[in-house]
Amino acid sequence: AGDAQAGKSKAAICAACHGANGIAVIPGYPNLKGQNAQYIVNALKSYKSKERTGGNALVMQPQAAMLSDTDMENVAAYFSQMK
Amino acid sequence: AGDAQAGKSKAAICAACHGANGIAVIPGYPNLKGQNAQYIVNALKSYKSKERTGGNALVMQPQAAMLSDTDMENVAAYFSQMK
Repeated sequence: AGDAQAGKSKAAICAACHGANGIAVIPGYPNLKGQNAQYIVNALKSYKSKERTGGNALVMQPQAAMLSDTDMENVAAYFSQMK
Repeated sequence: AGDAQAGKSKAAICAACHGANGIAVIPGYPNLKGQNAQYIVNALKSYKSKERTGGNALVMQPQAAMLSDTDMENVAAYFSQMK
């Protein structure tokens, strides 16, 4: 499982669109608050590998490309534990 | 905007994995409770068009293929209004 505290520092850039509280601030963008951590990791890996396209995937592909597997686990832990 | 009541009947099959209450019952699957409706529509369209691959996308592609645009709007309305 990831380290939510380490994820918090990596997640500052995420907050610009997905909200500091995990509620998205841009219409059509997903809320991440309380989301399943493994799902977030799967989504980030699919963006990084460019398997996930369509929708706003072009926004996320370069973001995910900057994250290591550990970063993904940590960011996922951070959003998933939000109440 | 979609019709949440109409979406409820279409969403019975969704509940098998994503939970009747929108909290996923399978590890790694996303919670849909309170998710942004436009995001859910975007995701379903990307699955139907097979632009979205990776992760468990192969599970969702055939599900989304069975939904019309109106069905997608309705199902999205149903999950997004869950508290």
